[in-house]
Amino acid sequence: MKPERMAAFSDGVLAIIITIMVLEMKAPHKADLAALIPLLPVFFSYVLSFIYVAIYWNNHHHLLHTLKHVTGGVLWANVHLLFWLSLVPFTSAWMGENQFATLPTALYGVVLFACAIAYSILQSTIIRTEGQNSHLARAVGKDRKGKLSIVCYLAAIPLAFVSPWIASGIYVIVALIWLIPDQRIEKVLHAPE
Amino acid sequence: MKPERMAAFSDGVLAIIITIMVLEMKAPHKADLAALIPLLPVFFSYVLSFIYVAIYWNNHHHLLHTLKHVTGGVLWANVHLLFWLSLVPFTSAWMGENQFATLPTALYGVVLFACAIAYSILQSTIIRTEGQNSHLARAVGKDRKGKLSIVCYLAAIPLAFVSPWIASGIYVIVALIWLIPDQRIEKVLHAPE
Amino acid sequence: MKPERMAAFSDGVLAIIITIMVLEMKAPHKADLAALIPLLPVFFSYVLSFIYVAIYWNNHHHLLHTLKHVTGGVLWANVHLLFWLSLVPFTSAWMGENQFATLPTALYGVVLFACAIAYSILQSTIIRTEGQNSHLARAVGKDRKGKLSIVCYLAAIPLAFVSPWIASGIYVIVALIWLIPDQRIEKVLHAPE
Amino acid sequence: MKPERMAAFSDGVLAIIITIMVLEMKAPHKADLAALIPLLPVFFSYVLSFIYVAIYWNNHHHLLHTLKHVTGGVLWANVHLLFWLSLVPFTSAWMGENQFATLPTALYGVVLFACAIAYSILQSTIIRTEGQNSHLARAVGKDRKGKLSIVCYLAAIPLAFVSPWIASGIYVIVALIWLIPDQRIEKVLHAPE
Repeated sequence: MKPERMAAFSDGVLAIIITIMVLEMKAPHKADLAALIPLLPVFFSYVLSFIYVAIYWNNHHHLLHTLKHVTGGVLWANVHLLFWLSLVPFTSAWMGENQFATLPTALYGVVLFACAIAYSILQSTIIRTEGQNSHLARAVGKDRKGKLSIVCYLAAIPLAFVSPWIASGIYVIVALIWLIPDQRIEKVLHAPE
Repeated sequence: MKPERMAAFSDGVLAIIITIMVLEMKAPHKADLAALIPLLPVFFSYVLSFIYVAIYWNNHHHLLHTLKHVTGGVLWANVHLLFWLSLVPFTSAWMGENQFATLPTALYGVVLFACAIAYSILQSTIIRTEGQNSHLARAVGKDRKGKLSIVCYLAAIPLAFVSPWIASGIYVIVALIWLIPDQRIEKVLHAPE
Repeated sequence: MKPERMAAFSDGVLAIIITIMVLEMKAPHKADLAALIPLLPVFFSYVLSFIYVAIYWNNHHHLLHTLKHVTGGVLWANVHLLFWLSLVPFTSAWMGENQFATLPTALYGVVLFACAIAYSILQSTIIRTEGQNSHLARAVGKDRKGKLSIVCYLAAIPLAFVSPWIASGIYVIVALIWLIPDQRIEKVLHAPE
Repeated sequence: MKPERMAAFSDGVLAIIITIMVLEMKAPHKADLAALIPLLPVFFSYVLSFIYVAIYWNNHHHLLHTLKHVTGGVLWANVHLLFWLSLVPFTSAWMGENQFATLPTALYGVVLFACAIAYSILQSTIIRTEGQNSHLARAVGKDRKGKLSIVCYLAAIPLAFVSPWIASGIYVIVALIWLIPDQRIEKVLHAPE
């Protein structure tokens, strides 16, 4: 299998995930402002999840950009990542519909944590395939951002039981950290060898 | 990232947005003509939104046609546009199900306005990247159609509170203006340098 | 715009249309055979619509296969076809859920008729663009299959008010006629000039 | 039609099938742990079906990898496979929502069986087109895995009436057998002629 095929399939799945989330925002039956109010947390949850899936799409591309061979390991590590990302719409809807209640907010963190671990597995599987001297290996380096995110999710999950707002705040901060596209790979790619 | 990837992902999202809107037209439980009547405003709203998303798809392609490099700014300006477009099915459903009531019709205009602003941001981000002498910069020129649309939406939002029919009429007129594919880019592309 | 882009977008929309139709087959809340019985007409309607969309996908590819330039007219004729095809899931669900009642079965024919007209418009728009001596023009020839289908739909719509079974039977027969892939284009393409 | 087009359309359909299944996991209205419990079988059913569709996507690619010509037979054998795969979300939802009750678990096996038969038909149609000495023909060989799976599904369907857990166990085992990507084709491809 060529990397292009795997990227195209992943793009398709990510495009669907990011778009079906809006189906959770059901049009209210009444046409007044009061009918929109309960949708506000659902909307905020949607915005957050939209940004997260967009970040994963962006980083996923950087990851596959340098890929030359799709091994069985890479393929299934990728399917594994898509699986966890596919759970984002569900946890996002549960969190939004319950006004960022404790348990849904914690579960949202669990799924973000699983996505981050799955991404990290995919990354190291690719590095193992491509070699320690590959562009990707040098670009990722110590992967501080990735590790920091995982630590943040791990902290946010129990903190959701203290206050869901702290946990939600952490999710927002991690998203902001990643919003800046990953320029590490670009740098190494364009650096003289 | 190559422009082709960004275009393909955007195509995927736009194809899903344009298609899931039809899910808002739920099949009535009864099989007589009376059961279809309440669906008429939903259908009209669907037609209008279908045309709008198709116009965005068409113009989006013209925009990316001349793109050579995807910078972080272009990428996120594009995601930002997709976000607002993803809200069209929600506002379209709300407007249709409430027979073009005041608030839903105004909100529909707000989302169209946000889409137009997001498109304009993407356009100027690309022009900044490609340079003032690029094909796109010359093709867009003073962007009269784009600015006119934004003024129309801005007018339609308060006018929805006077009469939703005036606002809806404006949405239809703006769609008709855009239905004619944007030949400015084509002209410059095929013009002798 | 390149024909490849238009084909890819159309593929995306057709893939979504053909797949979301299955969402109309809602899993029953009970787990016995009696719970499945009311789904039988929904299932039959799904099979019929799945075959129709697959036929359109197949023929659409043959149509675009020989396309060299996408004009504004071709682009909007294509969007117009996608619009009518996007209504197939709705009419299919309405017909299935109401056990092929008169009005839903007639409306199904109306949408099939509109799809056929839209396809025919797209076909003649492409021929006008490509020229009367193009591969496509010669391949289509007198377009007997296309014209026959339109006549069949036109007959089926009023016949649905006599008996929905006659109309349904006509839909099945037209599908069977098209199931055989359109070999006219292939023939001309491979024929010596 | 080029094999790439058929592969792209199939990818689109498979990406949608694998992603819309998550829509069956509806966010509960309550925010406590008790609200999540009834979702556990739905989740397990989702995981199983996700893996099955991913396996089909993977194997489907291997199948088309060596394809040179798309005949009408290959095209419709492929649509036939997509049809049965499109029923997986429905049977998966029915099985999950009814806590792996007898009939839904048996029907899940019926659809898996039909998918396997459809895959086998597509495989032999391609081999007939490409010739007995093609890479694919040699790679598939006696197709022990494929035949074993069909026998397993055939056994699981009646066994679901003895105990749905036996049937479910068989589905899990077959999935595990296939999780290892099909290296037969790869082997032959890279072998010296």
